[in-house]
Amino acid sequence: MSTPRVYLFDSTLRDGAQTHGVDFSAADKAAVARSLDALGIDYIEGGWPGANPTDDAFFSNPPSLSHARLCAFGMTRRPGRSADNDPGLRALLEAEAPVAVLVGKSWDFQCTVALGVEPEENVRMIADSIALMVREKSEAMYDAEHFFDGFKANPDYAISCVKAALEAGARWAVLCDTNGGTLPHEIETTIAAVVAAGVPGDQLAIHCHNDTDNAVGNSLAAVRAGVRQVQGTINGLGERCGNANLISVIPSLTLKMGFDVGLKPDGLTRLTEVSRALDERLNRAPNTHAPYVGASAFAHKGGLHVSAVEKDPRCYEHIDPAQVGNRRQILVSDQAGRSNVLSRLREIGLEVDPDEPKVARVVEEVKLREFKGYAYDGAGASFELLARRLLHRVPDYFRLNSFRVIDERRWNAKGELITLSEATIKAVIGDATYMTVAEGNGPVNALDAALRKVLMPVYPELRDLRLVDYKVRILTPDAATAAVTRVMIESADSEGARWTTVGVSPNVIDASYNALHDSITYKLFTAGVPALDNTGAAAAE
Amino acid sequence: MSTPRVYLFDSTLRDGAQTHGVDFSAADKAAVARSLDALGIDYIEGGWPGANPTDDAFFSNPPSLSHARLCAFGMTRRPGRSADNDPGLRALLEAEAPVAVLVGKSWDFQCTVALGVEPEENVRMIADSIALMVREKSEAMYDAEHFFDGFKANPDYAISCVKAALEAGARWAVLCDTNGGTLPHEIETTIAAVVAAGVPGDQLAIHCHNDTDNAVGNSLAAVRAGVRQVQGTINGLGERCGNANLISVIPSLTLKMGFDVGLKPDGLTRLTEVSRALDERLNRAPNTHAPYVGASAFAHKGGLHVSAVEKDPRCYEHIDPAQVGNRRQILVSDQAGRSNVLSRLREIGLEVDPDEPKVARVVEEVKLREFKGYAYDGAGASFELLARRLLHRVPDYFRLNSFRVIDERRWNAKGELITLSEATIKAVIGDATYMTVAEGNGPVNALDAALRKVLMPVYPELRDLRLVDYKVRILTPDAATAAVTRVMIESADSEGARWTTVGVSPNVIDASYNALHDSITYKLFTAGVPALDNTGAAAAE
Repeated sequence: MSTPRVYLFDSTLRDGAQTHGVDFSAADKAAVARSLDALGIDYIEGGWPGANPTDDAFFSNPPSLSHARLCAFGMTRRPGRSADNDPGLRALLEAEAPVAVLVGKSWDFQCTVALGVEPEENVRMIADSIALMVREKSEAMYDAEHFFDGFKANPDYAISCVKAALEAGARWAVLCDTNGGTLPHEIETTIAAVVAAGVPGDQLAIHCHNDTDNAVGNSLAAVRAGVRQVQGTINGLGERCGNANLISVIPSLTLKMGFDVGLKPDGLTRLTEVSRALDERLNRAPNTHAPYVGASAFAHKGGLHVSAVEKDPRCYEHIDPAQVGNRRQILVSDQAGRSNVLSRLREIGLEVDPDEPKVARVVEEVKLREFKGYAYDGAGASFELLARRLLHRVPDYFRLNSFRVIDERRWNAKGELITLSEATIKAVIGDATYMTVAEGNGPVNALDAALRKVLMPVYPELRDLRLVDYKVRILTPDAATAAVTRVMIESADSEGARWTTVGVSPNVIDASYNALHDSITYKLFTAGVPALDNTGAAAAE
Repeated sequence: MSTPRVYLFDSTLRDGAQTHGVDFSAADKAAVARSLDALGIDYIEGGWPGANPTDDAFFSNPPSLSHARLCAFGMTRRPGRSADNDPGLRALLEAEAPVAVLVGKSWDFQCTVALGVEPEENVRMIADSIALMVREKSEAMYDAEHFFDGFKANPDYAISCVKAALEAGARWAVLCDTNGGTLPHEIETTIAAVVAAGVPGDQLAIHCHNDTDNAVGNSLAAVRAGVRQVQGTINGLGERCGNANLISVIPSLTLKMGFDVGLKPDGLTRLTEVSRALDERLNRAPNTHAPYVGASAFAHKGGLHVSAVEKDPRCYEHIDPAQVGNRRQILVSDQAGRSNVLSRLREIGLEVDPDEPKVARVVEEVKLREFKGYAYDGAGASFELLARRLLHRVPDYFRLNSFRVIDERRWNAKGELITLSEATIKAVIGDATYMTVAEGNGPVNALDAALRKVLMPVYPELRDLRLVDYKVRILTPDAATAAVTRVMIESADSEGARWTTVGVSPNVIDASYNALHDSITYKLFTAGVPALDNTGAAAAE
């Protein structure tokens, strides 16, 4: 028996482009389409010709695809007009895409309320428009908008819309849960009824939204009920709560349900890369908790979990992370025991003998510092520096003898309220002492500017170091005087590396400096920069 | 026929505390437990006594709950030892919590590989440990770890573990999909088999993880199969990909599936607030695309959707957003902003005529300021002051002409590294000008101390004002130079009042001062203190 085939339809560039805060350029669209093509996706919906200049630009010069079929989206013809004379359909015909996807109503209430059209005319609109596309394009699909709500209200009418499209020659009828409110068991029973009414499953597609947190489950339920095409987007982009996330759907369909989705041989193992590349392109922070591909998807924190997973990964991993191009991550934290720290050390390339007394010192030091308020679990770079300092040595690239930061708010001569921050530092690098001063738009920014002023001439590797996030938290809110401040700083460089460091102190400026110091040290250390002589041997902070 | 009851079990403080990057203090845990109790959650799992200092501190002084039962988590006894002599179980007995939750294996492979224990001894470990807790506590549950994987491998053994726990007196056996790899249809058929084997559904609970993006769907499938307790966390916190998100589960169970989950009368409409408050506490950006409660969950972009939704919301909304305390957002013409502001004004006791032109000014000002980075959702006191300033007047209790804050870190004469913060301020109260200086353990603390030094003799009402939390977030992390800082300050007084204020500025000290100013003003205003003459009329800031 051959493996049943399920087709994949990606709408990242059409429905995904509706995401609040997401803006694709035509060049972005072409690049994303090429990466989906390389993965082996069957259909790529590029946009809506005629709806906006970006989509027009994309369709006037579409990327050449080796495998995927490019789809252009549009609406069924307007009421009381022939399909040939419809300007929307005209734009679709002119778009350089072999496949046309036409959305039309399938809920009688929607016809009368939203569109003001008789339900019978709507059926003719579907049939005429699909027939035109079948004639002029190489393939046509009908998006049955609000299919599941429509079916609940009037099953016969909803099915008649689907049948009209297929009889007019549509390759697929796409059952859309437009409002996203349908639950998995309803999807399954509805589709069973559609199939029982004589519509073949291998002409049915499913299109889900995540408004109840079930877009993926709904898509899987639809396949179980016989549907043979699944629509979704990369990372679940889409308006409101997003569309079904293909990155989650694909591994469940293939690894767990045994379907063939036509991916290239390396397609599955490239899912993590494709997911993160899209976030990178859109300048969005990746969801570290994303199923299958998130940085935390195979992260282990609790001490018992870690020792068990090292005995046999099946103890706490539902699949081998390498199957989707992801990897295991061992976190260090309060909860963590010795085995976390050990595997974390191996991960950063520190091969140590578990019985080495220094290892126990690292475990103790991590626990002690976490009790004081450090959070190593979210600050991998600070953990690495701490461990390396205790086990071997980390160069002291510079020593800060003192700093003074002044923040001043006053009315200037023009009567404007101004705030200035100025940092003065005295630092030792090698055998030279430097004193300098710099301004910033806040005390930490000023301190950072002063440090760079001194360090950059000696360590040009710091030129591309950027602080990309800065977070402060008070840890003992009810012990006001004894309150401790924790600062987390995320840094990045031009090669795409990102690392997080942590600083703790009752004084927020002090805590910030500590996190800043770790960030700079980490950058120089990982770049293999040697410390200048005379700065002194490694000190455990 | 009465509505079937499904019990809710929240594990935000135990499994949720495993989330990468999440760190609860004992005070955080108490506050979260109180908010869950107020919602009407049946069981609140507070942590693991004996596992770390935070959980010990929490259980030695637990919050008093009016409705929920507090649960302490632990493991079944060690092999070859009596339950009475087990140190882990001892810690659980000492914890001040009426309910004990004991995790134990139910997969024979796990017993032999992870634990190195004979499967028969594991069954005795479950029975003995549960029996001890039933004797000593008011209620006990058994967490059947890896139940679904265990059932696949050896259904008889998995069921025998569940039966052993129930026969020993456990109120509930919790079927855990520990690795999170099980799909909804597998959950449903497995549970059907367990029920068919004679285990009553009203003693079964479900505990899902989101590793395949199906934690919510799996939980719903379990309820359909007869399970009567659902476990999860707020916002789906939890290790790896998170646990089932109760914020998504609850509305689907109640609004769509017709179950009674025992929430307080206003519980459902407070889901949005509870979800966002937890993010605020953890200093995490809320997921704007979260089902039901995300800011974008009922957002409609321009064009067809908006006009259709205005004709009839059912066109593009699966539920009325007010049912879960959320609101529609029209991204083009923000009609909803106005009614939201109006309802918030009513909430703080400002009865205004909706047609009053000043109301439009409040709406405009809130929109403008939220665009600049203010977050009035989490800062009710600042919103109230802003609205009152625009609609009536708020006294100017003092005017700060200037401040200068110095933070200095250096080695003192004894060779110790010390950090000092010192604030100098010039302020006008009534017709007198004051200049003073004070120290603090950070710049904001110093500024606060200097302000108090000047204000307290004039306004003794400030004596019991305390700053209980301070949070900073950078709002435009990738635009380093243009980055804006948002500071949220939570204050409290001796009567138990708590209020939050917000300040925004490119300079963190400036933003902190703005939030501090609002906090002091709010305290004096709500205490009915009149301003001294000559400080000047109300100014909009």
